[in-house]
Amino acid sequence: MENIVLHENERIDEIASSGVKIIQSREVFSFSIDAILLARFPRLPRRGQVVDMCAGNGAVGLFASSKTSAKIIELELQERLSEMARRSIALNGLEDQMEVITDNLKHALDYLHPSSTDLIFCNPPYFKVDSKRSRLNESEHYTLARHELTTNLDEIFETSKKLLKSNGHIAMVHRPERFLEIVDKMRANNLQPKWIQFVYPKADQPANILLIDAIKDGKPGGEIFLPPLIVHDQDGNYTDEINEIYYGKH
Amino acid sequence: MENIVLHENERIDEIASSGVKIIQSREVFSFSIDAILLARFPRLPRRGQVVDMCAGNGAVGLFASSKTSAKIIELELQERLSEMARRSIALNGLEDQMEVITDNLKHALDYLHPSSTDLIFCNPPYFKVDSKRSRLNESEHYTLARHELTTNLDEIFETSKKLLKSNGHIAMVHRPERFLEIVDKMRANNLQPKWIQFVYPKADQPANILLIDAIKDGKPGGEIFLPPLIVHDQDGNYTDEINEIYYGKH
Repeated sequence: MENIVLHENERIDEIASSGVKIIQSREVFSFSIDAILLARFPRLPRRGQVVDMCAGNGAVGLFASSKTSAKIIELELQERLSEMARRSIALNGLEDQMEVITDNLKHALDYLHPSSTDLIFCNPPYFKVDSKRSRLNESEHYTLARHELTTNLDEIFETSKKLLKSNGHIAMVHRPERFLEIVDKMRANNLQPKWIQFVYPKADQPANILLIDAIKDGKPGGEIFLPPLIVHDQDGNYTDEINEIYYGKH
Repeated sequence: MENIVLHENERIDEIASSGVKIIQSREVFSFSIDAILLARFPRLPRRGQVVDMCAGNGAVGLFASSKTSAKIIELELQERLSEMARRSIALNGLEDQMEVITDNLKHALDYLHPSSTDLIFCNPPYFKVDSKRSRLNESEHYTLARHELTTNLDEIFETSKKLLKSNGHIAMVHRPERFLEIVDKMRANNLQPKWIQFVYPKADQPANILLIDAIKDGKPGGEIFLPPLIVHDQDGNYTDEINEIYYGKH
């Protein structure tokens, strides 16, 4: 492993269950539980090609890397974040398995073949630009990660349709309040929602994270709603399930 | 209370939390946990009109009766079941609050005014007639209760659209594997899904019951996925939540 340079305010985080190290910085958007939950959500192809869209600092692809021999492409618009992803790949010695493309995802076909991809991960910006929850006065790195300024669901699914093989999957993490919009736009692009899992902050609170896995050219009907994931117990500690996802089986 | 005649093979069941008695028979479809969960799912109007579609022996409307002063109309096609519902209404002394219409729900507007209804309950047949799970050799009463022979989602939502006031609700219990079909057909009739709750047989199993509440002329977006309901603990006993729904707060 070569000597990796850490810039000012950067740190290295490690998620025990994945065995990978990830360079983070509080100046840019860090990965959150959403990325960890997304990485372990879909069934991974053994080989072939995985694309991590809206990759940020590469967390989702890095987490998944130990569980597949597939090539993993990180696709990220922001230079600062994709450069961090490149250094994390080097830090973990994953240069043979992973690479980073720095561009808007709508240009993905300039780099990748159509119908070439077995699985797409996507942890996109959650908020519409006109949303009440918009906070467009925050730093540019955070703004782009959180708001649909440079991409949106239509572009994500149009690109996914082109990149995926028939029967390939897209696994997305998003907010439950946009569920119907997501399933409509998936289906408008021949992406048939099949496995859905809701994540609840506590057992008695509404879901705040949606995980959804759709199949290109899949048959309609027969949606499966996987067991609920509860993040915290009533005392505010992580549940056993979440501890297992973070730290692996004991 | 007058003297109510029980026919052969009939019994009286009581759900402690609702305080009502319901005439059941093993010769016809009895209410199940689905009806109990549906009755406590939506917010009930204080007054006005509630319609219980596909009412069977009237269980959902009977369970809800103690929690609202609204008029409750039971709408049931089968004479045998609607006659049982009428006797259950008398058994509970609810003749002033409840009545039964014996007809196909598509004729509901022959009895009820358009835009007259605040809330519709619906525990419809779950299976398409062409479903692999069809068991069309069972008794006619069970067949009609389980299969979409005499009604279907399109007719249910077309009728609901006509009966409901603007901003009135329809609360339905169904199977999760038909979720996308249900939300599509609701929206095709100006019924906007808003509150959704999944019910899981155990904490580590996929959902097997869907509860969905839609608003006539509601605004799209902002779906809320309510906390998961788990029916059994790992030992196979009812969870505290389900005990509370059956037996009330202790």
